[in-house]
Amino acid sequence: MRGPERSVELTRVTEWEDGGVRWFQDAIAAEEPLEIRIAGTPLTVTMRTPGHDMELAAGFLLTEGIIQSLDQIADLRMLTPENGSKSNVVEVELKDTDFNAGDLQRNFSAASSCGVCGKASINAIRVRGLQRPDGGFRVDPEVLCRLPETLRSQQAVFSQTGGLHAAALFDETGQLIVVREDIGRHNAVDKIAGWALQENKLPLSRYVLLVSGRGGFEIVQKALAAGIPVLASVSAPSSLAVKLARELGLTLVGFLRGRRFVIYACDFRCLLAGHETSMPSNGHTL
Amino acid sequence: MRGPERSVELTRVTEWEDGGVRWFQDAIAAEEPLEIRIAGTPLTVTMRTPGHDMELAAGFLLTEGIIQSLDQIADLRMLTPENGSKSNVVEVELKDTDFNAGDLQRNFSAASSCGVCGKASINAIRVRGLQRPDGGFRVDPEVLCRLPETLRSQQAVFSQTGGLHAAALFDETGQLIVVREDIGRHNAVDKIAGWALQENKLPLSRYVLLVSGRGGFEIVQKALAAGIPVLASVSAPSSLAVKLARELGLTLVGFLRGRRFVIYACDFRCLLAGHETSMPSNGHTL
Repeated sequence: MRGPERSVELTRVTEWEDGGVRWFQDAIAAEEPLEIRIAGTPLTVTMRTPGHDMELAAGFLLTEGIIQSLDQIADLRMLTPENGSKSNVVEVELKDTDFNAGDLQRNFSAASSCGVCGKASINAIRVRGLQRPDGGFRVDPEVLCRLPETLRSQQAVFSQTGGLHAAALFDETGQLIVVREDIGRHNAVDKIAGWALQENKLPLSRYVLLVSGRGGFEIVQKALAAGIPVLASVSAPSSLAVKLARELGLTLVGFLRGRRFVIYACDFRCLLAGHETSMPSNGHTL
Repeated sequence: MRGPERSVELTRVTEWEDGGVRWFQDAIAAEEPLEIRIAGTPLTVTMRTPGHDMELAAGFLLTEGIIQSLDQIADLRMLTPENGSKSNVVEVELKDTDFNAGDLQRNFSAASSCGVCGKASINAIRVRGLQRPDGGFRVDPEVLCRLPETLRSQQAVFSQTGGLHAAALFDETGQLIVVREDIGRHNAVDKIAGWALQENKLPLSRYVLLVSGRGGFEIVQKALAAGIPVLASVSAPSSLAVKLARELGLTLVGFLRGRRFVIYACDFRCLLAGHETSMPSNGHTL
């Protein structure tokens, strides 16, 4: 579905190196706005890398809590501009949903009378009625360590441009199921969620999601909406991401590099039996 | 102004390394929502790292084109929650502005009858009446090369957590003027813009802005709103960032690492006279 000609653009650049200058054609990651409209009303505009746009739109609807299943999408299509240029508008018709556009904006402050705060943000996620991810799923630490290398070998656009984030889904043996790239980290995750929605694979309760950037609050929220039990990143998580992951039972792994990683929430899914018995005597678990 | 106790949080984590497991307290970057209200009406909620919140709010108003000068802020203050907890709401009163909240949403599609596209996005920026950055400013390539190291030595929180983006302002001699950190790249830039607004230093026409992440469309937009002539990043820019920078005359530098960088737009500000004369015979410049 992805047209490589739209994910990457060539442009003339000037390179300075150690006092010398040269000019050449360089590949850069494409960025274009995508507008998602529900029944003709603009819902959001996101800056994204073109490709897998239908997945992105469907995934956004799912991970923002606007829909819970594929049945609620009556129609989903790219608008075709009259002048024949490429389209950046996805038009959606919903059914069996009580969504109204104001909900997205009000998400944060409506959930708590104390006003906007991290606790209210987590409440806003919780009231969507998300299920806790599968508590029986386990992934071997040795399997986890191999994921970044597998992802790197599959990242087509990133290797050309150095400018894209990736999200990838793996099964418990470390096999890569699907990878999506985007200039926005959250968009890459939405594309994965949209893929799963369209393939009828939700909830993704037997998979690990690996993201190339940080594990922030929004990424944890989107992983939870897709039912993912283990979210891993090569970089650091944020405080609110950790709180949300602990509260809703998602295993959150950071700094997954080489043969080391740090678990910030729900470590039981990534520790072998031998490790669990070596738990400190205060019995405190994440 | 920044309370270190709010920028960083300590939490208990599980580390797996080469088959061994240990538990310890780790520092993670704080993330909390900040709501910006204009005359009591919520304008936006952004996930940010607490600290310099007034700068963030003021900078957001400037770089999103809601205000053009400090005079237009009649009042700017943190709301104090009745329960005495920390505040995540900034309340703003404006004057001498024709802003209405719908403008932000309509930005993209209103500017062009062709619908939403990169061209329309650039038009939406252009119609704000932005000035082109100072054409007379120059920065020596050798000065540019030193900036990332200077920034790293100043990044207090990042070195603890590995989880924050930074934005920093330098003068033409490479002296660091101000640095701000945030979990969101755009927030770090807004904090710089807000600092400049409050210090009456706008436009920032004799400064280089260095950002720790990618140079995307929104970062270029915000740099332009602050009058910055040179934007440099250690990573890759996006296609739309390059187009906007070329269209509005901002020098855009990427992959600034060691003694090498790539210039994607308006290279004349970073090339010495000798280099300019070595331009290829077709005379094409960025």
